[in-house]
Amino acid sequence: MKTMKEIVSQPESHKLAAEVFFDITADAVRLISKKNRRRMYFVGCGSSYYIAMGLSEQVKRISKGVVSSTCLSGSEIMLGLSSVESDSLVVGISRSGESSETVAALEKCRGIKNVECISLTCGSGSKIISHSDAHIVLDFIEEDSVVMTNSFTTMSFVASAMIRQILAPGLVKEYLEVIPLSTEKTVEQSGKIIEKLDLNALSSFVFLGYNEYLAAAFEGTIKVIETSLANSNAFQTLEYRHGPISTVNPSTLVCVLPGVRSSKEEHALLRDVADKGGKTICISGNPIDHNCSIVTDYKMEDYGDWFLRAIPMQLIGVKRAEVHGINPDSPVNLTRVVRL
Amino acid sequence: MKTMKEIVSQPESHKLAAEVFFDITADAVRLISKKNRRRMYFVGCGSSYYIAMGLSEQVKRISKGVVSSTCLSGSEIMLGLSSVESDSLVVGISRSGESSETVAALEKCRGIKNVECISLTCGSGSKIISHSDAHIVLDFIEEDSVVMTNSFTTMSFVASAMIRQILAPGLVKEYLEVIPLSTEKTVEQSGKIIEKLDLNALSSFVFLGYNEYLAAAFEGTIKVIETSLANSNAFQTLEYRHGPISTVNPSTLVCVLPGVRSSKEEHALLRDVADKGGKTICISGNPIDHNCSIVTDYKMEDYGDWFLRAIPMQLIGVKRAEVHGINPDSPVNLTRVVRL
Repeated sequence: MKTMKEIVSQPESHKLAAEVFFDITADAVRLISKKNRRRMYFVGCGSSYYIAMGLSEQVKRISKGVVSSTCLSGSEIMLGLSSVESDSLVVGISRSGESSETVAALEKCRGIKNVECISLTCGSGSKIISHSDAHIVLDFIEEDSVVMTNSFTTMSFVASAMIRQILAPGLVKEYLEVIPLSTEKTVEQSGKIIEKLDLNALSSFVFLGYNEYLAAAFEGTIKVIETSLANSNAFQTLEYRHGPISTVNPSTLVCVLPGVRSSKEEHALLRDVADKGGKTICISGNPIDHNCSIVTDYKMEDYGDWFLRAIPMQLIGVKRAEVHGINPDSPVNLTRVVRL
Repeated sequence: MKTMKEIVSQPESHKLAAEVFFDITADAVRLISKKNRRRMYFVGCGSSYYIAMGLSEQVKRISKGVVSSTCLSGSEIMLGLSSVESDSLVVGISRSGESSETVAALEKCRGIKNVECISLTCGSGSKIISHSDAHIVLDFIEEDSVVMTNSFTTMSFVASAMIRQILAPGLVKEYLEVIPLSTEKTVEQSGKIIEKLDLNALSSFVFLGYNEYLAAAFEGTIKVIETSLANSNAFQTLEYRHGPISTVNPSTLVCVLPGVRSSKEEHALLRDVADKGGKTICISGNPIDHNCSIVTDYKMEDYGDWFLRAIPMQLIGVKRAEVHGINPDSPVNLTRVVRL
């Protein structure tokens, strides 16, 4: 099974990414460092849109609000529904580098006064590169599957590290060391916890978090939807009480991805779900008092492990597909690249 | 059935809202007009969060980008996860005026330098009012149901009209005249179209749009989830191709809420869904070539009918609940107000 192989190869890919990090980001870092830009946009579609969402939050957090940052889908820009201001830096994200909407978005952005574009892709020689002023190419990621797993976390890792290099260079060395170890732990622990789930009895999957962790939660939903055709939603954690909690029953699995500041209230929500008969999992940076936890073992409080928290959901999707006799390697109605 | 009664009473409520509009908004308009603020925040939880989302987009659109606007959930502010800048205007939205998170958010915002707060509520004498510098109280909306329907559209209408009064006063008179008529048409047409749906055969409901229409789509999902416990998701229209389209089958209903600029591409998506065997509905401002359309008959191109486009989804939720023997008046696990 290709997708499963790609999921378990993530620790290896992140190790490799850390090794080549300074080489593959050199051009982009040089471009960004030339001008002291205060406005950034991250643009993508599908899983790359959720990468954009997480990175946009990381920029605000690591710059302590000094750099403003917005996440947009490729189609929003392509269709003229959201505008990019002049004097901005735009980062376009596409695994293949060929997504029509993201390529069109970058093409459009380069026509805006004093806007420069960087592309983040696994596709060397791809279209998106020809519309960029600098590019970060992860050509060591060869993902055959339709759904993005390894490419999602590895592109997120490289860009999150680059955000540190530019905005808080003192953090980057440790970050590059820590993440590959955290990835290993996360894959291993997720496997064990998900092994114990009765995926035959679960029909609805809910992922909850805030900020970067909400981006991971959204990525989780489309992962579970694409691979196993299950019912899945993501919300800000406390928003779940304002309506959607009405559906909780013993076939509901609710995963919370708590942040440092909101951990207490997010755990209270998990207890509410358990009281109503739902199954719960907590995906956290530190071990906490919850009998079904997956720990990324990421000790810093800067949400730097955000993309790792999607790994358990990748596994849930693939394992549930297996149980239901669905082939996660070839989802219905989907192609590897969306070309319009 | 209370909820159904409240849904069909929306044209009447909007007529009444238009009549009392200048009276109930006078204080708030005076407060806003005193200072020429360039930054606004809209804050709410659940359905009120989606009101906040729609209003935030309306401010950007009607001010032509001059006023920056952000939508936040009550919990984001309460938990310190997103910050409100000084010199801003904050609008807190809560049907009852008692939602713990939104009340706490407003309390927190008033501690920020030169921030003023306005509350938008149906609850006269409620807590949120005591944390506001001005308030807009729709005390003529008496909604008994747990789920918000009439209160959602009427609060949205009043605030959308107020945005026009402040930022483009030439538009407000016509807007107040047009919306009640559009509401009547929308309720009537929605009833007819939904009557024809085989709600027994549909198990998954997808609502698609951009900007204000995406806010209506999100509101639609929690409406269908709360009232009928169905599977429901919302996405930006073209994002649907990047993963979630994999689940389309004859039991899927996809509703698109097209915008003026993106109508062509959004209709192409609907055709894709139909080709894959899904059922489709288009909820639009103008009649268009689609054999299952609901038309709000709102001719302006400023997305002013955004909240009306949630009405068909209110009806889908209630009708589907009926078919499945669920009582939409008393959703499982929910209370009228979320108090922490």
